Amino acid sequence: MTEQQPRVGVIMGSDSDWPVMEAATAALDEFGVPYEVRVVSAHRTPHGMLSYADSAAGRGLQAIIAGAGGAAHLPGMVASATPLPVIGVPVPLKHLDGMDSLLSIVQMPAGIPVATVSVAGARNAGLLAVRILAAADPDLRAKMEAFQVDLERMVAQKDANLRYKLTHPE
Amino acid sequence: MTEQQPRVGVIMGSDSDWPVMEAATAALDEFGVPYEVRVVSAHRTPHGMLSYADSAAGRGLQAIIAGAGGAAHLPGMVASATPLPVIGVPVPLKHLDGMDSLLSIVQMPAGIPVATVSVAGARNAGLLAVRILAAADPDLRAKMEAFQVDLERMVAQKDANLRYKLTHPE
Amino acid sequence: MTEQQPRVGVIMGSDSDWPVMEAATAALDEFGVPYEVRVVSAHRTPHGMLSYADSAAGRGLQAIIAGAGGAAHLPGMVASATPLPVIGVPVPLKHLDGMDSLLSIVQMPAGIPVATVSVAGARNAGLLAVRILAAADPDLRAKMEAFQVDLERMVAQKDANLRYKLTHPE
Amino acid sequence: MTEQQPRVGVIMGSDSDWPVMEAATAALDEFGVPYEVRVVSAHRTPHGMLSYADSAAGRGLQAIIAGAGGAAHLPGMVASATPLPVIGVPVPLKHLDGMDSLLSIVQMPAGIPVATVSVAGARNAGLLAVRILAAADPDLRAKMEAFQVDLERMVAQKDANLRYKLTHPE
Amino acid sequence: MTEQQPRVGVIMGSDSDWPVMEAATAALDEFGVPYEVRVVSAHRTPHGMLSYADSAAGRGLQAIIAGAGGAAHLPGMVASATPLPVIGVPVPLKHLDGMDSLLSIVQMPAGIPVATVSVAGARNAGLLAVRILAAADPDLRAKMEAFQVDLERMVAQKDANLRYKLTHPE
Amino acid sequence: MTEQQPRVGVIMGSDSDWPVMEAATAALDEFGVPYEVRVVSAHRTPHGMLSYADSAAGRGLQAIIAGAGGAAHLPGMVASATPLPVIGVPVPLKHLDGMDSLLSIVQMPAGIPVATVSVAGARNAGLLAVRILAAADPDLRAKMEAFQVDLERMVAQKDANLRYKLTHPE
Amino acid sequence: MTEQQPRVGVIMGSDSDWPVMEAATAALDEFGVPYEVRVVSAHRTPHGMLSYADSAAGRGLQAIIAGAGGAAHLPGMVASATPLPVIGVPVPLKHLDGMDSLLSIVQMPAGIPVATVSVAGARNAGLLAVRILAAADPDLRAKMEAFQVDLERMVAQKDANLRYKLTHPE
Amino acid sequence: MTEQQPRVGVIMGSDSDWPVMEAATAALDEFGVPYEVRVVSAHRTPHGMLSYADSAAGRGLQAIIAGAGGAAHLPGMVASATPLPVIGVPVPLKHLDGMDSLLSIVQMPAGIPVATVSVAGARNAGLLAVRILAAADPDLRAKMEAFQVDLERMVAQKDANLRYKLTHPE
Repeated sequence: MTEQQPRVGVIMGSDSDWPVMEAATAALDEFGVPYEVRVVSAHRTPHGMLSYADSAAGRGLQAIIAGAGGAAHLPGMVASATPLPVIGVPVPLKHLDGMDSLLSIVQMPAGIPVATVSVAGARNAGLLAVRILAAADPDLRAKMEAFQVDLERMVAQKDANLRYKLTHPE
Repeated sequence: MTEQQPRVGVIMGSDSDWPVMEAATAALDEFGVPYEVRVVSAHRTPHGMLSYADSAAGRGLQAIIAGAGGAAHLPGMVASATPLPVIGVPVPLKHLDGMDSLLSIVQMPAGIPVATVSVAGARNAGLLAVRILAAADPDLRAKMEAFQVDLERMVAQKDANLRYKLTHPE
Repeated sequence: MTEQQPRVGVIMGSDSDWPVMEAATAALDEFGVPYEVRVVSAHRTPHGMLSYADSAAGRGLQAIIAGAGGAAHLPGMVASATPLPVIGVPVPLKHLDGMDSLLSIVQMPAGIPVATVSVAGARNAGLLAVRILAAADPDLRAKMEAFQVDLERMVAQKDANLRYKLTHPE
Repeated sequence: MTEQQPRVGVIMGSDSDWPVMEAATAALDEFGVPYEVRVVSAHRTPHGMLSYADSAAGRGLQAIIAGAGGAAHLPGMVASATPLPVIGVPVPLKHLDGMDSLLSIVQMPAGIPVATVSVAGARNAGLLAVRILAAADPDLRAKMEAFQVDLERMVAQKDANLRYKLTHPE
Repeated sequence: MTEQQPRVGVIMGSDSDWPVMEAATAALDEFGVPYEVRVVSAHRTPHGMLSYADSAAGRGLQAIIAGAGGAAHLPGMVASATPLPVIGVPVPLKHLDGMDSLLSIVQMPAGIPVATVSVAGARNAGLLAVRILAAADPDLRAKMEAFQVDLERMVAQKDANLRYKLTHPE
Repeated sequence: MTEQQPRVGVIMGSDSDWPVMEAATAALDEFGVPYEVRVVSAHRTPHGMLSYADSAAGRGLQAIIAGAGGAAHLPGMVASATPLPVIGVPVPLKHLDGMDSLLSIVQMPAGIPVATVSVAGARNAGLLAVRILAAADPDLRAKMEAFQVDLERMVAQKDANLRYKLTHPE
Repeated sequence: MTEQQPRVGVIMGSDSDWPVMEAATAALDEFGVPYEVRVVSAHRTPHGMLSYADSAAGRGLQAIIAGAGGAAHLPGMVASATPLPVIGVPVPLKHLDGMDSLLSIVQMPAGIPVATVSVAGARNAGLLAVRILAAADPDLRAKMEAFQVDLERMVAQKDANLRYKLTHPE
Repeated sequence: MTEQQPRVGVIMGSDSDWPVMEAATAALDEFGVPYEVRVVSAHRTPHGMLSYADSAAGRGLQAIIAGAGGAAHLPGMVASATPLPVIGVPVPLKHLDGMDSLLSIVQMPAGIPVATVSVAGARNAGLLAVRILAAADPDLRAKMEAFQVDLERMVAQKDANLRYKLTHPE
């Protein structure tokens, strides 16, 4: 959580989602994007959830990342009450391996989109928020391009390491 | 729709759900249970949806039947803002055959239950509402018992017909 | 299990279901709803199961919670022989993660509804039974409303805790 | 349906299952195995269903074929009240393509087996009943062996036809 | 494995299936049904597998229980080369939780039935073999009826124990 | 397709995807967002696809909408070679009902996000692109807010129509 | 079917699979690869199927394409009795949309591989056979490279057509 | 990894796939087939991945084995840029048990085949590569035939061991 005016809201239905959702904030930190973190539940705090969504754009947020599991209604409900792009993270529960979370988030009816990432894919949710902000922010876009070059370098390093290991058995 | 004070609210996210949901009202009609029908969308009218849920018990409703498809949030969101029993009907969309609707409705987190029926099972939603009201209404329970005897009779009739047909080939 | 005349029957096919089903009775306890607990198997005691269902309403029960796993027939079979609302809890077995249990319970044919909750969702089954009884019991409804306010408070507390933790790193 | 003492009971939850289940009786007819056909519903006639199962062995039946769809409880419930081998046919309903029917029939708990065939596989249910009777009936087994030789011949004929067609384009 | 002329063949594709399949032989032992156990692989010993199936009836077997996992071809292939009833046990592998095994066994084409039991349901496979033999063996049928009475008793005992435990907290 | 400098690229693997993808462009038209439409195939034109992605940001695009079916690689591959936000539309093919398309698009590895919408959800892809552009464009955001108010009005109208119809039977 | 010594065997369990499998032979024809077509059933002609597989390599075949549906055993069983590469085509049946066929073919145990293509993907099976032969046949590889260039051209043409159509409304 | 000119490329998206993919190289080692191992990522090194595919045939490779998980694009993308046969290994990730990986690899569009093996089936991928090379290499084919005889022997040994163990209880 950062002191600056947050540009991204990272919300989840329960603090038990934090171990999954933390990776979204780590990605935002890497890019220096200020954010806020909130526990907001569609089912346990329906009015509070709508208030959060209603006020998000006015408070300066530019994107919202929402994680939820099972009958996961938080991303879609927040999207219904904000004009901001909302990114949904399907949090896997103990049963059904996140398939219920995924379908509950991605299968939104026409009119109200949710940008869905993979099951437990909070890191990618953070990176998607960066790309969204970068669409109108050349500096951030340059950082994203540099990040992608780093990914290439990391793969090249892993490739070299694996080949070294295979040709130099202990 | 009946003139009497409605005891059951039958709601759906879109009038395109009516062909599926109509069977719920037909069941209520058979038992003489007054009801109201409303189009209420979790995603397109989030505030209206919460208002409906907030006021339902105070207006004399005793149960709510909510049908929705895809990322089906209506039953769960209504359940979050009313103490009434909420019955969810998974409406199948063009793709995924209702599996997304079913999981989005039934996999509610602990604290907020939704009484889920089968994919497109609106008739059973109506009958479940009757059973719920009948839990404290001996007359209605007697009607339900008579209805179940009728089901038995119908099966006996079908059994006789099929056996007649098989032994009397044209 | 309570000394008072039970209003809810909590049944399961095997005592191995008890660790899942216990949460239903805990919820009933929280609301002071008297209940009975029974091991009743559709497949191993078919006649005993029907007797239980036949006599349930006459003995003063107002709702039945039935848990079963795999080819889970207990909730549907009990519903076929009682006019009471029956709540089905899909108990997950070792394989298939409860998907078989869920479909075996929720996909009931028209005529015989089962109010299905989530996989292993016994707590919600208890809360749904409370809502059903509360439909005709203002005191119980007030308790449910208070319970829902408590849920909101809990989320607010978790929200505050998480924000504190994030802004006060050790 | 045959005049002789039936050896196989072919039952289904509704006469709407007959178009699927008819193929079971056709297979029995091909092998000259006498059978009876009944509409028996686990959910609409629970007591009648148990009576049917209780009396089946005593009336001279040696196997039961039961077809059902959705939350398909008929095969398993009949198996619970008879010592006879019970063959289950998953009848596909309008939604979920028979996957619910299949899981509801095949995933029986230890103690009560149901011999499950493929979705809509009523012909194979009939053939399985023949194999079961043939286990102690050399004449019937010889017929089954002849039937299997015929299958081979049919494939050889189809093979020849397809090769002829491909080498003799019109 | 018994010294007597075996009436049931219990086969599996690999000795790694034995921990699952052992329960089939335990059930046969309880009913005093003699059986043989063999490792026979459809994929690794295709000719040996067909020889086994070809000779099974002639050697006095009356039913075959075949367990296999993944693309599980053993039950269906054996059924193609014997007139005996073949019972298939879907053995779950490390991935997909037995769903592949189940579909590979149960979805047999018309002409060649396999009596499929639940994922890892080897005990029920043994009990199904007993029911099949009992179809023409009054003594064995009496044992099966007694077994079913025992199941009822066991449930009654579990019911009593659970109720005792709940009313006598430590 | 518009004469202005396009801000969004709408691409698809084949012109057979156009009937699904057209809805994305209709949504962009409603909001006056200029876009380009291209057939670009990950599998049939891999180098052309990478060139498209490489050059997209430099040519002034701010978001890309990519539709594909089956083993749907287009959205993910484009995302790998551009820093722009990429929106993936799972196009359903003849078999598997779009589930393969959905999983192939949404389950991206950490590092390369794709904003996935529902099966065949091209209209929402268009609306999501609008929200993304609107994150830094107050005028567009105002339009999106107006659009959401219109959705509410439409639901209110449908609600009134259905209630009128139900109370005024012909 | 060609007069030359066939290099590829195209087999299927029933002539009803021909409408799907024909596309494999069309692909082979495009590349001038000689092939034979046979109806060979794992379940109805198990011995004939093994003979076919046993003799395939000796007769000069270099690859086998096998199509089958449901509990699809043909590809795996043929692979068990030949050292040739076997390509499996999951043929979709009336129910389950080919998912059963796919899993029955692809999930082969270690030791016996089947090269599986998409549901109903017979054209790709033909193209895969060409690639396999081309691995040691420079002329055929050159044809495959030319074919891939043609694919690129076709996409470019479709791209141009779609753009023309969109900019030249009638 | 071998000093000889490699005939097979074994590639994977990340070194974390190595524990699964290692089995492919073990199989190649058993048959003395030289190979190379590379970490090549479709998503993190898209240009490097295409370069690898473009140059593979020219460098003397005759087949490529590619493993990937989740939205697994590596096998299909490599197949799009090489005329060589490409074998895809679905690597299971933490969620969804490899079903996403399988569908992302096997459901390739017409034109670009990928020879898919089972979830985590890297050993079979290696064996399939051997069969592909053996299609034009009599020595390698003889080795594959010997390998298949060994499989038969192993099963015979396991069969003998299990029977010994069952008849000689400790």
